[in-house]
Amino acid sequence: MNRPTRRVRLTIAYDGTDFSGWQRQKNAITIQEEIEKRLAIITNNEISLHGAGRTDAGVHAEAMVAHFDCPSPVSDAALLRGLNSMLPGAIRIHAAETCPQDFHARFSATGKCYRYHLYTGQIQPPQLRLYTLHITARLNLAAIRQSMAYLIGEHDFSSFENSGTRDKSITSGRGAVRTIYAANLLCPDEKGIVFEFIGDGFLKNMVRNIVGTLLEAGKEKISPPEFGTILLQQKRAAAGPTAPAHGLLLKEVYYDTRFSGNKNQP
Amino acid sequence: MNRPTRRVRLTIAYDGTDFSGWQRQKNAITIQEEIEKRLAIITNNEISLHGAGRTDAGVHAEAMVAHFDCPSPVSDAALLRGLNSMLPGAIRIHAAETCPQDFHARFSATGKCYRYHLYTGQIQPPQLRLYTLHITARLNLAAIRQSMAYLIGEHDFSSFENSGTRDKSITSGRGAVRTIYAANLLCPDEKGIVFEFIGDGFLKNMVRNIVGTLLEAGKEKISPPEFGTILLQQKRAAAGPTAPAHGLLLKEVYYDTRFSGNKNQP
Repeated sequence: MNRPTRRVRLTIAYDGTDFSGWQRQKNAITIQEEIEKRLAIITNNEISLHGAGRTDAGVHAEAMVAHFDCPSPVSDAALLRGLNSMLPGAIRIHAAETCPQDFHARFSATGKCYRYHLYTGQIQPPQLRLYTLHITARLNLAAIRQSMAYLIGEHDFSSFENSGTRDKSITSGRGAVRTIYAANLLCPDEKGIVFEFIGDGFLKNMVRNIVGTLLEAGKEKISPPEFGTILLQQKRAAAGPTAPAHGLLLKEVYYDTRFSGNKNQP
Repeated sequence: MNRPTRRVRLTIAYDGTDFSGWQRQKNAITIQEEIEKRLAIITNNEISLHGAGRTDAGVHAEAMVAHFDCPSPVSDAALLRGLNSMLPGAIRIHAAETCPQDFHARFSATGKCYRYHLYTGQIQPPQLRLYTLHITARLNLAAIRQSMAYLIGEHDFSSFENSGTRDKSITSGRGAVRTIYAANLLCPDEKGIVFEFIGDGFLKNMVRNIVGTLLEAGKEKISPPEFGTILLQQKRAAAGPTAPAHGLLLKEVYYDTRFSGNKNQP
């Protein structure tokens, strides 16, 4: 018997510390599988959850988006309550909303915002150690800002791409070409630095590779024009190291036209 | 050969999540032992570390104080660097300072400040789950404030004491009598509530038992005068449940006369 299904969109926060990333895999605990297991209990059906993208082991999310087709008449409110009561506190569902049948968490996404958090004080507070990269080297912030400016716009980001399957979505068929709409350096306080990147899509490890290379610019190992040249070289070997996963946060996934009309400015 | 020793005072922050509390014990990982093990390596001697008090499993500290007698000529700066390089990130040494020989982390302490953190939003952010107690019940803050007022001053706090060895220090010989100098309710934002207690000493589980009972007042299960009566009864059974460990933070230990001259106001 085929029951009618409806599509449900989930907004998900997680602390990635104890998970092997978003995507379901054998012999590893992943966020996708943790949620699918609870959805199976609630709906009494096998459920495939489709995320807006993948995050690596240790990467956090404030608002990952995912969808699934729900064969059960359970209400959105009961789904939200049920998931949050069954999931570990490291995964929280902020919203469960019935959405149009043609909504797709990955293919409908028009952009994403990632943030990368640094702690620059001498001694890192224990409570921040899983969420911020501790950097004690003095950073030239002006050099970082100048380097970040090279990222804005449409570029082939091969220099910042690690090998692996590419994320599809609206960037499908574009190879390593992506558009960065905004790259901001935020300094919430004297010991915190946050890199923010808003773009139409991100290649595997792209943000972490960009941050690792921006830190080289901050340490004055490379100059801002050299950073620009690295981008143009389209070779991973040209760029700096991959920054650790735990500083990275998927801040938001966009599904509106804000990030597709004018590609230079959100 | 007896080498000359000097006394060193450590200021220590820790995330208590993965430790069985402060105090060394068999078959359990404790903060005291983790630090002693590294001090033994650095000084090439068995070291006994004396803390200002004990914290239970899961309780955090922003500035625990401890002292030890250092038989090695290693400098304070090298001690600080060495400890932080060897200790896990969940334990950070903020300061290592040579202090007078008669300084004692426990017996010289004149007071302590504890904070208890609540998160009152509907869905607790994963990054706060280990540091805040999640409370979704509506709390009557005025009733909590009125109840807290009963705590100020010198009282027998037996109603809020769990069985166990008593912390000595300046309160030695005073039974369950302690002085609370200040009890504040802080609301850093619309989803955060912090209880702050400053006193000359605290009995076993005293802060957690007070918070558990204040929450009963917040939920209007008891009235503020009833809270006052519970204190007067001097019976643990009269009070509310023990609030969970993870919301509690040892904020500061005092070693000055601020908290012994005028007992009603810090």
